[in-house]
Amino acid sequence: MDIQEQLNDVFEALQNKRALIHHITNYVTVNDCANVVLAMGASPIMADELSEVEEMVGICDALVLNIGTANERIIGSMIKAGKAANAKGIPVVLDPVGVGATPFRRESVAKLMDTISFSVIRGNMAEIKTIAGLEAKSTGVDSLEEESDGAKIALNLAKKLGCVIAITGKIDIVSDGSSTYALDNGDSALTKLTGTGCMSTSLIGSFLGASNKALASAIAGILTMSIAGEVAGKSQGMGTFHTSLIDAISQMDAQSMTKRAKIDFIK
Amino acid sequence: MDIQEQLNDVFEALQNKRALIHHITNYVTVNDCANVVLAMGASPIMADELSEVEEMVGICDALVLNIGTANERIIGSMIKAGKAANAKGIPVVLDPVGVGATPFRRESVAKLMDTISFSVIRGNMAEIKTIAGLEAKSTGVDSLEEESDGAKIALNLAKKLGCVIAITGKIDIVSDGSSTYALDNGDSALTKLTGTGCMSTSLIGSFLGASNKALASAIAGILTMSIAGEVAGKSQGMGTFHTSLIDAISQMDAQSMTKRAKIDFIK
Amino acid sequence: MDIQEQLNDVFEALQNKRALIHHITNYVTVNDCANVVLAMGASPIMADELSEVEEMVGICDALVLNIGTANERIIGSMIKAGKAANAKGIPVVLDPVGVGATPFRRESVAKLMDTISFSVIRGNMAEIKTIAGLEAKSTGVDSLEEESDGAKIALNLAKKLGCVIAITGKIDIVSDGSSTYALDNGDSALTKLTGTGCMSTSLIGSFLGASNKALASAIAGILTMSIAGEVAGKSQGMGTFHTSLIDAISQMDAQSMTKRAKIDFIK
Repeated sequence: MDIQEQLNDVFEALQNKRALIHHITNYVTVNDCANVVLAMGASPIMADELSEVEEMVGICDALVLNIGTANERIIGSMIKAGKAANAKGIPVVLDPVGVGATPFRRESVAKLMDTISFSVIRGNMAEIKTIAGLEAKSTGVDSLEEESDGAKIALNLAKKLGCVIAITGKIDIVSDGSSTYALDNGDSALTKLTGTGCMSTSLIGSFLGASNKALASAIAGILTMSIAGEVAGKSQGMGTFHTSLIDAISQMDAQSMTKRAKIDFIK
Repeated sequence: MDIQEQLNDVFEALQNKRALIHHITNYVTVNDCANVVLAMGASPIMADELSEVEEMVGICDALVLNIGTANERIIGSMIKAGKAANAKGIPVVLDPVGVGATPFRRESVAKLMDTISFSVIRGNMAEIKTIAGLEAKSTGVDSLEEESDGAKIALNLAKKLGCVIAITGKIDIVSDGSSTYALDNGDSALTKLTGTGCMSTSLIGSFLGASNKALASAIAGILTMSIAGEVAGKSQGMGTFHTSLIDAISQMDAQSMTKRAKIDFIK
Repeated sequence: MDIQEQLNDVFEALQNKRALIHHITNYVTVNDCANVVLAMGASPIMADELSEVEEMVGICDALVLNIGTANERIIGSMIKAGKAANAKGIPVVLDPVGVGATPFRRESVAKLMDTISFSVIRGNMAEIKTIAGLEAKSTGVDSLEEESDGAKIALNLAKKLGCVIAITGKIDIVSDGSSTYALDNGDSALTKLTGTGCMSTSLIGSFLGASNKALASAIAGILTMSIAGEVAGKSQGMGTFHTSLIDAISQMDAQSMTKRAKIDFIK
């Protein structure tokens, strides 16, 4: 099945199932994350209390872990939720926001990766390089990395971890350790709105919860965001861009996605 | 006084008093909740630190408790705030988000109901049935329940608890244990935006803080949201719908509400 | 250098440097705060875990502390972050939201002021009077104070604390203890949207992180918000106003600001 067919496939799955997506995520972009999940026809649940995350994830179709504003308590809840998800075969997505910025983030992500098997990890180049144990230049939660080595890094890390690695940036790279794709959609305005990375991760979680197909879900989630970014008008400013972006996501369908998608099979 | 007059009444109260509405609520929809309270002419305060909620609620006109992303710490603050509100005669509204989803939520709501007298409890059918001790089908925070038994359930629970019960759904049911109304406004787009339930609860809190009339406030709060949903244009997508919804709420007045309202007196 | 030149100066600094602004702030308005920082060309980081705030602030250009929904844990993180910022010469801005409302807020702000040197403190009249130890009339997080004494209060407090004091209201007052300015821009719709105060503080933090000039940054941050409020169309309602406000902020430049700014040098 070629990648276009796979995208149609996960889109169809999303339309046929009101997938429940459990999020343990940051308080900065959480409203937009919930709204893009709903806009795509899935259903978001946000819950982070240690004593309920096990039951909560048990009724869901996917789990999204995003460390944007995590604290010690939240990391504990993520570990418990992630283990429960793994035990039940519920796919888990990780967004290691700013992992290189502080020892707390590095150690928290190391703990998450030691105890949880992820289906997809999505980050910018600096975040993924940090996870890969490579030297990474970042500034806060933004990456300062060149993207030329992306394909090799994604491929090797995906092989090593046995999960899909998605590196988002000007060109997005997605690899499952055997096939690697480069995606060339998007708009520079997406970097001036907070949460476009987090929303992409939530979109990946939505496709994944509906289809349980990691590679195609990662590509579909990223393309939904980047193509919506192209569609959204930005001439009036960032408030209008924000609104138009959500409009475009809520109106995305498989046909417009596959028609606009610029996907290169690298290897 | 018929229901139309009662609605005019609580609207007038809201316009004549900058009611302060203390919220202990979730971090997903809190910004929209604050904005709809402001849009109606009331003033929101969000505060959840255990050592300040007692004083905070003491300067407010109503308290809204919403368990959307509650944790153990937050439930403790809710209990303290609710008791203080009861002691001072300040009305309290409960939004038991997803109460049936986990034991933590069921036990937390049980604790809240044991220690606090509520003026209004608003939830979807599954949430209200869970509170009523009935078998409830839900999926995460969404209800899968039929709405046909709503009027009986609302009436009985309102009688039993001595508070107004509001069940929102395609048809909304509101009962104070003696009068029961069905409201038939709204738009399906409201289910694709996160927080429309939470916002309805905050609107109920706003009317209640200004008027201290529980039944009419519950009806007015729900109608404000559902009629705004009808007014809001949705053809451009969910981002524009979100913006238009807040526009419509900020332009709601008693006359347009009573004109558009479809209220059935059931019993 | 006159004030217009100083404003041009801090605007230029903001455009030439992608300043990182670390926020420890409330969960109500945090998304808007992040988006206005991005809209101006700076980069926001939100992080509040005690064990990482020291390293996080160390890679940033300014720190913004906002107590809107603070709790004991968060205040501890603020103190640690503020001390680290002071030690490294990174400017710190305080937004003492509703400081007069509860003993917890008064004591927390007293602790912050005892341990941290601030570059700018921005609040409404009631908040600043509370900090100045004067009797203040407030209702929740809103001020009920007359603004006639603003210039004297700001000047004296700025002198006493050795930092810039900004009092926002119908007329905004900014003083560094030697020069005091009154700013007469804005629109009443700004008081009907949550977070316009918080966003002003984040804008001040953005200019300050880029320029390290406290007085001009405070004026530029406040003018960005109040002039954007004038530009934003409000006829369609508060949802559209919110969107248009962010649009106007993202399109603000030094020339339109200095052209529209109504600045009075008081003393």
